[in-house]
Amino acid sequence: MAVYTEVTDEALAAFLTDYDIGSMVAFRGIAEGVENSNFSLRTTNGDFILTLYEKRVNPDELPWFLGLMEHLAAQGLVCPQPVRGRDGAALRQLCGKYAAVTTFLPGVWPRRVRPEHCGPVGAALAALHKAGVLYPATRPNALGPAGWAPLLERCVGGADAVQPGLSRELPAALSHILAAWPNTLPTGQIHADLFPDNVFFLDGRLSGLIDFYFAATDILAYDIAICLNAWCFEQDLSFNVTKARAMLAAYEATRPLSPAERAALPVLCQGAALRFALTRLYDWINTPSDAMVTRKDPLEYVRRLRFHLAAPDEHAYGI
Amino acid sequence: MAVYTEVTDEALAAFLTDYDIGSMVAFRGIAEGVENSNFSLRTTNGDFILTLYEKRVNPDELPWFLGLMEHLAAQGLVCPQPVRGRDGAALRQLCGKYAAVTTFLPGVWPRRVRPEHCGPVGAALAALHKAGVLYPATRPNALGPAGWAPLLERCVGGADAVQPGLSRELPAALSHILAAWPNTLPTGQIHADLFPDNVFFLDGRLSGLIDFYFAATDILAYDIAICLNAWCFEQDLSFNVTKARAMLAAYEATRPLSPAERAALPVLCQGAALRFALTRLYDWINTPSDAMVTRKDPLEYVRRLRFHLAAPDEHAYGI
Repeated sequence: MAVYTEVTDEALAAFLTDYDIGSMVAFRGIAEGVENSNFSLRTTNGDFILTLYEKRVNPDELPWFLGLMEHLAAQGLVCPQPVRGRDGAALRQLCGKYAAVTTFLPGVWPRRVRPEHCGPVGAALAALHKAGVLYPATRPNALGPAGWAPLLERCVGGADAVQPGLSRELPAALSHILAAWPNTLPTGQIHADLFPDNVFFLDGRLSGLIDFYFAATDILAYDIAICLNAWCFEQDLSFNVTKARAMLAAYEATRPLSPAERAALPVLCQGAALRFALTRLYDWINTPSDAMVTRKDPLEYVRRLRFHLAAPDEHAYGI
Repeated sequence: MAVYTEVTDEALAAFLTDYDIGSMVAFRGIAEGVENSNFSLRTTNGDFILTLYEKRVNPDELPWFLGLMEHLAAQGLVCPQPVRGRDGAALRQLCGKYAAVTTFLPGVWPRRVRPEHCGPVGAALAALHKAGVLYPATRPNALGPAGWAPLLERCVGGADAVQPGLSRELPAALSHILAAWPNTLPTGQIHADLFPDNVFFLDGRLSGLIDFYFAATDILAYDIAICLNAWCFEQDLSFNVTKARAMLAAYEATRPLSPAERAALPVLCQGAALRFALTRLYDWINTPSDAMVTRKDPLEYVRRLRFHLAAPDEHAYGI
């Protein structure tokens, strides 16, 4: 669930007077997302999303995220667009939290991924990478390779309780991945969390991308590796090469990959799987069991990691 | 949180073909309510709420609830109106659950109750009681006095762990209340759960009532007692007689109370406080601590119960 902060109707009404978007008509918490509190807000002018930024987001970085969304929207990417208040500021405060209003995107995220979703995701990701080129600011990826060792250190002690042997398997994988990690591939603004629940479809077409709060400046092809992990495994964790091929072909139609990027796909996919295995493991061990969030199974990503470690080269991904 | 069942976009699209309400535009889980899964659904025709009925609701009773909502809406009460499918049926199935689409109500529920909310709530409750008179079906109140002893039995064993002494205090209160419970007061259709999160306001006016899934046929004034408990205590659990007076005066402007109803207010309020103390205690003891619902503190209602037990007569409520 994703409402950590209760917003009183009076506080919201007062907050809205700082905007030129009309008065409140309806206001409901949204049961999606796990990092921030999100509300669906209808005013006399239309529909919006109100986000209250919770503890995991560093407030100093919020202008970077909002600026990126504004930049991408201006470049024609369909994503939530920050709405500025009367004073020109998009980042404001509400109920003691930083808060922003963004535009509402129609569409529904695919609960079950079908092969025909994967091409549009690849195309949208390439469009995002192209649109991001001109965004001048950089944000180091806290959950990129440099962050994995400290993250592992904080959860390795509890790893064997989740699955015996994990406390040896994960450090070994990390060493292997870091040793092979590429450092000359093209970088830029990446979404870094483009899972199915962050991609909307409408009438069979991709209608928008949401949730840019893990976005960072990092290897572009790493973003593809995240999507291959997020979209191309079946429920039984078998890899669906048809989905991967559709995603990569559509990506390359907009932004062709260099031979070096293609060759790096296995290690990038390993890194992406490790990254989600580690954050899930950390949450699994550290989330109080009575918290109102679903703990996601880290082993799903450990199994993906094993698949990628066994991939001999990029042809494992259908290219 | 209130999304227990994941609805795939394909299943939803197929479901909507049974209706004449257009095609899907947006679909989000709503983070409110604890009994059923609720989704905000936008179609090309407008906005709706999709409800999937989860385990606590007896499917045999769903036609009664939907029929009541339809009846009340036809009588002019603003409440969600069940939308019938092309075949005329409002109660359908989706993802293995019973499901219904209802109309969307604008408005926002008051996170902080102010005295000016309480008059409109009293007036709406009286209007509901009047509008319900012609609804011919009856539904015994499973959470009425006859249900309290069995409920207490199932949680009294864990009561002292919540607060020492509770395992003696609650049975004593129950005996006292049942002995004094009135059985000749007017009965009818009651909402039985008209808490602030079930009442919407818009521009300072009450704009609708929602969530009729505890509604039942029971003593009308007991519904007032529930509202006095739900609306007229402050955060520190002190009783706000100004709020109670406003609520009762507005109620009586539409449906005057008989002397017997007025005299019964203390015991009705005791019963209402005990009912919520017991269901909260039961949930507190029996909800797995990793469940995705917020457990509500039963002691808040134990303290209300003590207030009502100390009330010498109906004048304690400002009348």
